[in-house]
Amino acid sequence: MKERKEHLESPWHISENSFNPSVLRAQETVFTTGNGYCGVRGSFEEGYPGDNPTTMIAGVYDKVPLENSEMANVPNPLYLVLYINGERFRMDRGELLDYSRILNMKNGMLTRTVRWRSPEGDTVDLAFERFASLADPHCIAIKCSATPVDFSGTIEFRSGIYGYMVTEGRCHWRPCDQGSPDRQSVYLHTAMLSGEFELCEAAQFTVDGAQDVVYDYCDCDFFPFTTARASVRKGETITAQKLVSTFTSRDTAGPQEAARSHLSVVCTKGYDKILSENNARWDQVWDRSNITIEGDDEADRAVRYNIFQLLIAAPWNDEKVSFAVKTLSGLGYRNHVLWEAETCMSSLFICTQPEVARNALMYRYHTLDGARKKAKKYGCKGAMFPWEGDHTGDEKIPSMVPHHYGELIPIPFVKCQIHNTSGVGWAVMQYWNYTGDDDFMREYGVELLVEIARFWSSRSTWNEHEKRYEIIDVIGPDEYHWHVNNNTYTNYMAKWNIEQARAALSWLEKEFPEKAEQLKQRCELTKATLQQWNDIIALMYWPYNTVTGLMEQFDGYFSMKNTLIAEYEPRSIPMSVVLGLDGMQKSQIIKQADVIMLCALLKERFDPKTLRANYEYYAPRTDLTHGSAMAPPFYALVAARCGKVDEAYRHFMHAARMDLDDLKGDGEKALHASCLGGTWQAVIFGFCGFQLTEDGYSTDPNLPKHWKRISFTCMLRGKKVRIAIDNTGMHSRNCKHSQTTIGA
Amino acid sequence: MKERKEHLESPWHISENSFNPSVLRAQETVFTTGNGYCGVRGSFEEGYPGDNPTTMIAGVYDKVPLENSEMANVPNPLYLVLYINGERFRMDRGELLDYSRILNMKNGMLTRTVRWRSPEGDTVDLAFERFASLADPHCIAIKCSATPVDFSGTIEFRSGIYGYMVTEGRCHWRPCDQGSPDRQSVYLHTAMLSGEFELCEAAQFTVDGAQDVVYDYCDCDFFPFTTARASVRKGETITAQKLVSTFTSRDTAGPQEAARSHLSVVCTKGYDKILSENNARWDQVWDRSNITIEGDDEADRAVRYNIFQLLIAAPWNDEKVSFAVKTLSGLGYRNHVLWEAETCMSSLFICTQPEVARNALMYRYHTLDGARKKAKKYGCKGAMFPWEGDHTGDEKIPSMVPHHYGELIPIPFVKCQIHNTSGVGWAVMQYWNYTGDDDFMREYGVELLVEIARFWSSRSTWNEHEKRYEIIDVIGPDEYHWHVNNNTYTNYMAKWNIEQARAALSWLEKEFPEKAEQLKQRCELTKATLQQWNDIIALMYWPYNTVTGLMEQFDGYFSMKNTLIAEYEPRSIPMSVVLGLDGMQKSQIIKQADVIMLCALLKERFDPKTLRANYEYYAPRTDLTHGSAMAPPFYALVAARCGKVDEAYRHFMHAARMDLDDLKGDGEKALHASCLGGTWQAVIFGFCGFQLTEDGYSTDPNLPKHWKRISFTCMLRGKKVRIAIDNTGMHSRNCKHSQTTIGA
Repeated sequence: MKERKEHLESPWHISENSFNPSVLRAQETVFTTGNGYCGVRGSFEEGYPGDNPTTMIAGVYDKVPLENSEMANVPNPLYLVLYINGERFRMDRGELLDYSRILNMKNGMLTRTVRWRSPEGDTVDLAFERFASLADPHCIAIKCSATPVDFSGTIEFRSGIYGYMVTEGRCHWRPCDQGSPDRQSVYLHTAMLSGEFELCEAAQFTVDGAQDVVYDYCDCDFFPFTTARASVRKGETITAQKLVSTFTSRDTAGPQEAARSHLSVVCTKGYDKILSENNARWDQVWDRSNITIEGDDEADRAVRYNIFQLLIAAPWNDEKVSFAVKTLSGLGYRNHVLWEAETCMSSLFICTQPEVARNALMYRYHTLDGARKKAKKYGCKGAMFPWEGDHTGDEKIPSMVPHHYGELIPIPFVKCQIHNTSGVGWAVMQYWNYTGDDDFMREYGVELLVEIARFWSSRSTWNEHEKRYEIIDVIGPDEYHWHVNNNTYTNYMAKWNIEQARAALSWLEKEFPEKAEQLKQRCELTKATLQQWNDIIALMYWPYNTVTGLMEQFDGYFSMKNTLIAEYEPRSIPMSVVLGLDGMQKSQIIKQADVIMLCALLKERFDPKTLRANYEYYAPRTDLTHGSAMAPPFYALVAARCGKVDEAYRHFMHAARMDLDDLKGDGEKALHASCLGGTWQAVIFGFCGFQLTEDGYSTDPNLPKHWKRISFTCMLRGKKVRIAIDNTGMHSRNCKHSQTTIGA
Repeated sequence: MKERKEHLESPWHISENSFNPSVLRAQETVFTTGNGYCGVRGSFEEGYPGDNPTTMIAGVYDKVPLENSEMANVPNPLYLVLYINGERFRMDRGELLDYSRILNMKNGMLTRTVRWRSPEGDTVDLAFERFASLADPHCIAIKCSATPVDFSGTIEFRSGIYGYMVTEGRCHWRPCDQGSPDRQSVYLHTAMLSGEFELCEAAQFTVDGAQDVVYDYCDCDFFPFTTARASVRKGETITAQKLVSTFTSRDTAGPQEAARSHLSVVCTKGYDKILSENNARWDQVWDRSNITIEGDDEADRAVRYNIFQLLIAAPWNDEKVSFAVKTLSGLGYRNHVLWEAETCMSSLFICTQPEVARNALMYRYHTLDGARKKAKKYGCKGAMFPWEGDHTGDEKIPSMVPHHYGELIPIPFVKCQIHNTSGVGWAVMQYWNYTGDDDFMREYGVELLVEIARFWSSRSTWNEHEKRYEIIDVIGPDEYHWHVNNNTYTNYMAKWNIEQARAALSWLEKEFPEKAEQLKQRCELTKATLQQWNDIIALMYWPYNTVTGLMEQFDGYFSMKNTLIAEYEPRSIPMSVVLGLDGMQKSQIIKQADVIMLCALLKERFDPKTLRANYEYYAPRTDLTHGSAMAPPFYALVAARCGKVDEAYRHFMHAARMDLDDLKGDGEKALHASCLGGTWQAVIFGFCGFQLTEDGYSTDPNLPKHWKRISFTCMLRGKKVRIAIDNTGMHSRNCKHSQTTIGA
């Protein structure tokens, strides 16, 4: 019990001490593990009725009708089943005498201990552990120990690759080949029904702790598995190990050969070595990405959980994938890449793991052709990034979605939901500012910025009457209002994008004139174009009231029905449902940060008065509890910047615990990646007021009163900078500040 | 070899003597077996790469997005695998030394003999046989004998229910329960992911012919199977038997109990008894439904094949299902019930198995509520039957279909593709005329007719200018022309429907005045309504030129671009592709019988001159080779009625061998049920000129010259009538005619 308490109290552990089948799927989401190559939901190895075992591999999308493509659930590598004296262990059978589950964020290890009495009355202690190695993207390791408590008898393990996996009712895989070279290892080679990708998983199975282990192989169609049977005496422990190696045709032309030969390497290494390499890699990663909040254990652990889940969903080794919108924890938007990838999720990496941020940006570079094609389709120039992207870079947003069976709801957004492209430009600049990676900019970054600027300038229209540039017929980040004109977020970000492109191009012209010339040729950057850019920068309209400091969300927003969220409280449903489609569009109630998102992303552009005025106007009109998962962290960020620390903390804790406590009520499906990333930003950019300066960085802390000290690390131009802020007094601005810089 | 030749020559056998993997799936379709409760594609028990093993159960549809519902492929009951000295038998491995497959239409038995040499060099003779008992809808029986040719060693059989079945990429089933009470039997209880239906398949496995058979059970998830291992000596035969019992929640509230207890009954009976009962039932069925054509073996066998495939897809014991559009052989239109059910497929049954025809009509009666709902939705009265129906009776046509991934093609037809409702009325009248089943009419038939008439009268509009009733904005049977007005087929059938309803109501008023009164109350049949019916009967417009005898397909058809199919020959693609969407709608080229369909269904209404004029006009403009599978048999029928016997025979043979020879090129998907049924009609109503008369029937033969004699049976008002027509001379009308009537 002492140990349990330690887990509950450990800042590195997420744990549960009892099993509640009613939250089975939501907890599967919470206990997701992974290594960025793959994500594995926290399902039990032996299965449970109604579970949703899901393993996803970054970039492995399959074609599907209607929704175009989806990330596919791959054949289950977890499958590990026990028979205790012939009775199959499953927690819905027999008696569950003791149970605990711990996710150790320190090294990504998920453990479960169970005391179970079989229907026939045999009691056994079981201990499961598993991790996807952060040091070896292709390796998953699983261990299960069994100790008879009150009997001696036989224990049989069954370990295999289970091919029959469903992705929301769809099958993606057909068998190609399977087998077992030696009764202890198995492999399953599958291909997508569409032919898009192939995949091979190979697994080695070893049982230790008994004299008479008998292995056998069962060549069950689409489910090759090995069994290991042994006699065990009361009190003695028998341990099964399963090492899995996975390769897809994204990785290599011969996934079967790769998976099988890599399995040999993995097996030679052995479980303990794999684990120690994993742990060492995690130590490196946490050394840069950890945040410690002293004085608030709950916040401390929750923030770490948000970071952890981002870390295990990140493209560590692959520049052709980015951050999927539901991490690698489940479906939702078919787990495509949305604008959250740059605006919410990339910041943690830009600041602490820039190599990963670079991979995610390279994904955009590699998929520029899809973005150019989309721009062309809509009569624009440059790059118009897909609202929902997959490995191909083509637009994959469905044109219709099924509502009830037989009824299709059209999604008319694709033409006007355009602001996402500005987020890519924003992330490129953030990356450059933090890393000073001129090589990236020279080869890829400036081209990205230029193509984005070309898109925005072709999408802007000159209003002769008002003598200004406008962007009409859009949807801003707030999705309660469609087909609006001059959305502040969109216009300002567009103008800013063009500004940055102009500046980056000047830099390139100065530093690498030949490169600049090539780029100008390739992207048809004439003098006239560049002049038009200057005009747009100067004359892009964005509705800002210099007296009040208020920005109007879009043309006419302030004349709409002026209602406050408070008038509808308490409620348990989103405001979109309360108001209905029509009411929603006529009201000032909004789904999420829109003007406030702009304030958050470009906070250095707005003075505190402007931030405060807009926060105070929009917060009471935003569905912060039941709208978008993105809203709470960015309201927290801006509230903290305005010195409204109590409000900021309320939004922040809602964000930080959103997935841990299933506050949105849809936790069974997947994690909310935008909220995970936004939470990190709220801490660093909000409470700590961290920002880059000409010669380094500055902080401007507004910490919650009970926080004693916060420390974190930032990578600045290749150097590791340790930052710690002591909260010394009642006033939040009264903070002490310490810094260490370590060479990269 | 002698035996082989006999099979090839037998009028009851469809056979192949070599295995060609390139037509694997098309031949799977050809060799479909079944019993009306279930249909089983001719896949191999042990599987083959790229095969499409499919088992369908009538009425077992599942909800799916976009396409609303589809008939679901159920867990595979065929699964039976052999290991010869440890090597798994599959025809793509080792050496295939001899092969033949025979479908015996006499009793629905599919057999396969194989001589196979394993990769290690062991040669074995295998003989498979299987059938779905026509005497017991819930029973499938499979047998496999193995004889070592040149070795003594071990043979292992593996027999199970394989749960992982895919329906065009979709999973429909999740496991509920599985097990093996005794190491020889297994069961798999599954439920649809949507919850729509449950299903249990239970199977018993016995191996004879060896002393030392060792059975074992493998509780593999979602795939319970038993193994039987034995030593066999060279030249000795070992035989495995698998008996399968299937029940769904459509049949009973407890499908598992039902399947398992029925399995006991089946096993007690034993394979031979099940087979003899099946054979006896088939003898009864063929006694009524067979046609013998002497002098044309190819036609004789092909016609029998068409009848056979209809017989095994018919609702023998279930009045809540009808004829699915692809029989039970595969998908296409999600295997919904379309207008072909009545216009093409029901005639064989009305004339030879009226109990089955009644079941199919009762399906329409039981689903009247869905038809009423649809009528209401489109502002009409009465019953508007779904264009695509399933077990619910609701309209299940998709509103959009995926064309390429990401592109959805809207189907705007549902509102104007209305002619199918008239087919239901037509079949009711055919059934009544043949059977004299007044009980059916009193309880159900008149109500069906009345609701159909109400629909047509509410859908007709009065043209004050022309002083006539019209039906505007429809699609006729020819689907190359949309949104047309006054489609002759539609208008004439509507008028005819109302006429028949009026007459049937008069009959009811006379014979069962109370019933009539109730019906009039229930269906709001006021005097005004009935007067309107009379008006429509008298004044419904249908464009008929009394001089030429020509009927115009719809308003303006004759003014469209007057092209002939011949101008585009030779070609290998449908005219719709040649002309494009737009060109198609502006041309007189049509997809299928439209005016000619009317001539075929109501042939007694039109004189030979009219039939000939219309046939001669429309045939050269119809895409008979690459359009609808429905076209060839009905053109054959009408051509025969016009005395154009050679042309008729050409169309007829194209129809009769369409599926056997995969003439449409899409045979891998499923059979073409409309063509199967139309072929039967072409023989009986076309070549034989069979029709009912006031006091019985008459024939008016126009037989192909080389046909010597044709004989068939018809059920007339409960009496079995044997009809034989001798073709005595050069002129086709010069036929002798004999008849026997047998009491029912």
